[in-house]
Amino acid sequence: MANQFDVAVIGGGPGGYVAAIRAAQLGFKTVCIDAGKNKAGDAPALGGTCLNVGCIPSKALLQSSEHFHTIQHELSEHGISAGKPTIDVAKMIERKDGIVNKLTSGIAFLFKKNKVESIHGVAAFAGQDNGKWLLNINGEQTISATHVIVATGSIPRPLPNVEVDNKTVLDNVGALNQTAIPKKLCLIGSGVIGLEMGSVWNRLGSEVTVLEALPNFMPMADSQLATEAFKVFTKEQGLNILLGVKIDAVKNNGKNVEVTFTTDGNSQTQTFDKLIVAIGRIPNTDGLNTEVIGLAKNERGFIEVDDECRTNLPNIWAIGDVVRGPMLAHKASEEGVAVAERIAGQKPHVNLDVIPSVVYTTPEMAWVGKTEEQLKSAGIEYRKGQSTFAANGRALGLGQAKGFVKMLVDDKTDRILGVHMIGPMVSELISEAVVAMEFSASGEDIARIIHAHPTLSEVIHEAALASDKRALHG
Amino acid sequence: MANQFDVAVIGGGPGGYVAAIRAAQLGFKTVCIDAGKNKAGDAPALGGTCLNVGCIPSKALLQSSEHFHTIQHELSEHGISAGKPTIDVAKMIERKDGIVNKLTSGIAFLFKKNKVESIHGVAAFAGQDNGKWLLNINGEQTISATHVIVATGSIPRPLPNVEVDNKTVLDNVGALNQTAIPKKLCLIGSGVIGLEMGSVWNRLGSEVTVLEALPNFMPMADSQLATEAFKVFTKEQGLNILLGVKIDAVKNNGKNVEVTFTTDGNSQTQTFDKLIVAIGRIPNTDGLNTEVIGLAKNERGFIEVDDECRTNLPNIWAIGDVVRGPMLAHKASEEGVAVAERIAGQKPHVNLDVIPSVVYTTPEMAWVGKTEEQLKSAGIEYRKGQSTFAANGRALGLGQAKGFVKMLVDDKTDRILGVHMIGPMVSELISEAVVAMEFSASGEDIARIIHAHPTLSEVIHEAALASDKRALHG
Repeated sequence: MANQFDVAVIGGGPGGYVAAIRAAQLGFKTVCIDAGKNKAGDAPALGGTCLNVGCIPSKALLQSSEHFHTIQHELSEHGISAGKPTIDVAKMIERKDGIVNKLTSGIAFLFKKNKVESIHGVAAFAGQDNGKWLLNINGEQTISATHVIVATGSIPRPLPNVEVDNKTVLDNVGALNQTAIPKKLCLIGSGVIGLEMGSVWNRLGSEVTVLEALPNFMPMADSQLATEAFKVFTKEQGLNILLGVKIDAVKNNGKNVEVTFTTDGNSQTQTFDKLIVAIGRIPNTDGLNTEVIGLAKNERGFIEVDDECRTNLPNIWAIGDVVRGPMLAHKASEEGVAVAERIAGQKPHVNLDVIPSVVYTTPEMAWVGKTEEQLKSAGIEYRKGQSTFAANGRALGLGQAKGFVKMLVDDKTDRILGVHMIGPMVSELISEAVVAMEFSASGEDIARIIHAHPTLSEVIHEAALASDKRALHG
Repeated sequence: MANQFDVAVIGGGPGGYVAAIRAAQLGFKTVCIDAGKNKAGDAPALGGTCLNVGCIPSKALLQSSEHFHTIQHELSEHGISAGKPTIDVAKMIERKDGIVNKLTSGIAFLFKKNKVESIHGVAAFAGQDNGKWLLNINGEQTISATHVIVATGSIPRPLPNVEVDNKTVLDNVGALNQTAIPKKLCLIGSGVIGLEMGSVWNRLGSEVTVLEALPNFMPMADSQLATEAFKVFTKEQGLNILLGVKIDAVKNNGKNVEVTFTTDGNSQTQTFDKLIVAIGRIPNTDGLNTEVIGLAKNERGFIEVDDECRTNLPNIWAIGDVVRGPMLAHKASEEGVAVAERIAGQKPHVNLDVIPSVVYTTPEMAWVGKTEEQLKSAGIEYRKGQSTFAANGRALGLGQAKGFVKMLVDDKTDRILGVHMIGPMVSELISEAVVAMEFSASGEDIARIIHAHPTLSEVIHEAALASDKRALHG
């Protein structure tokens, strides 16, 4: 029957759409139900937060703002003179929208090509029938599926008593769609989203204040990396980052916003043109009706799953931001592939211990595996090899000779336990570290492997050599 | 005695200086004899061709010219307006010289730190004494060493009947030190040096003609890569690349140069402001006096060595451009490390089958392992997985969504046999492929390994999936 499927995927983000394509490739009659709309709100848009209002649009704005910054500050050493640049924010946003549209419509194309049926709407569990799960779409149509993959992602964590209007008080959606450069911009939260958005608008000329509740900057990262990043962002780039901040009140005046906050026991009120709230994300199970079928969630709202993304109910799976583990698109995609393959009886594996994290600031940051703090608290003896970009020929050529690579290896076995980087293009360099760790590589292995000259990747090579105290260039 | 050494290294390029540092680290009394001088010719400069007049200065100029090109051609889509830029060539060259000086003086510092003695001069073999090799420096001083590592590199291959004056007719040295932008520039040779120099001056506004003797473009590369590159360089970037060209005459008029050449049976003469001759490089054994001791060279002038860089004479080793194998800095360095370790009784290994090649044009090119042509002629059955940067979110964000990654895997074992890339930052992406191949990875391994999103490295992941006909985004 038309409304009967082997696999129904709820959510068309990087977890869901990939799961749907893989399921269809494996021969299953597959449907993907997604409620996302384009920016204008007048048409469906697949791709979820990542493609529409997350990873992709932020990278577009980061590049535009990077160009704007480069022209003003980095060309004179090359002997290049150009007039003072201006930026048409609307056109910058239009470019970003074009990239988003290209990719979201690309998913629609991939769905057709792979014969994934696409339904626009909100799916709600509506019980079982003959061993199949029933899903009601928009309260109108009902479909059934043998397997359901929940991939509904996450939504911004709300700040109590603060309403996001996406005009003056913004979440990630509004932060990516500003129509002018705010003179004074406040960010509440110094996570990845906050740092990337702060970088964009800082480069374009905003005076940026970041208010962070935690006492430590970037506690998810290796502390040496975080310390270096804090120094660069505050001292060199002029971001005003305050830690250990308690937000007392936020008053949206429409044309501006007053933020009252306490730091070091002192309360103050500052007025900003715009406020971006980016204090993390929470799992999105809105409208799913998990209660109707008894789909178990934990106290933090995540759907409970085992190591293989099985929920407490048979043939219902959940992947990506709505379950445990890092809220990262690539983790969601790999879980999606793995679940589709498990449904097909295959034995895939997703290694949650080797998932890279990337922050697309300048310098970029990327890491995989354990931090020094994690190794210390686990009582694991390790050696540390570190090398900097300061004397790397490629980095000097690029004019981006800042930052370092730190490799942590097991003191006895030499196995690589973690790699932490801050510097140029480390978003791309991290893939070498991930592949190495998936092969249980030792520091010695990387030290023995030729790295092309002159490349930034030679700094990884040097870090590996340094972990054995035989750096050639250190 | 002061003039007796355990290890004498002849040549301070990336092979020699690295060999010397490693030998010293291993406890040997080590000397490095190098004849290189700085640009002004008034002081010694370590680092060889690579650091002084090769890899490093070319990367500096490539970046400067890239900025100049970007401002003019890539900013309007971002909404950025700036006045028409101008470039002060002298300042661009000065920046390049600064980077070179930083790195060459860095080697002098590393020599001090590692207790490598540094002698400036030309070393010549002068026989043996008590089982030690004697080296005469500049015809003045004589030293002895138990082991000698010859790392004298390479020099530009001369074009018969054409004298390089480095004013109008240039080799790599002159090409990197032009004082103005030539209106019409001719390059003889379309190898890596020719393409990189052609790119620099083309971006700065020169009308560039490349004359290549061979009938095929980039025959050392996979032909699909070469075809794509040829299309981009000629159609999109306006380089005039002529293949199968016979050079009939070169007449240097001082202010310009007339080149007479035949292509498709038609002879023509064109006048250029500058001519760069870059038709490859030949091993440099000038002044070594190899004949005196009977050090064997082959008919092409390379010092003959076995797989472990042993020459025909005991305790004389040779590495880098002066021996067989690709003329690449990173190959020379690894051979240098390996020889030092062999002298110390270790068992190192350099895998000549997994040496990456990189061309720093835009788009960049990089490859490692076998080409399709090599696999076909060897009768090896393979599968091919290809993915493009056209739909890669990071590439779109960067505004560089051109090119592809092609992965070749053994049809039966799935082992990766070659990876060929053209596109943004593939110079850095290649390190993942090298590490994978050193671990004898299969296409399936790379397909199973998480790649951070959104990164360019996802295109490698897709190529791996495509080699098994299960691309998610293709």
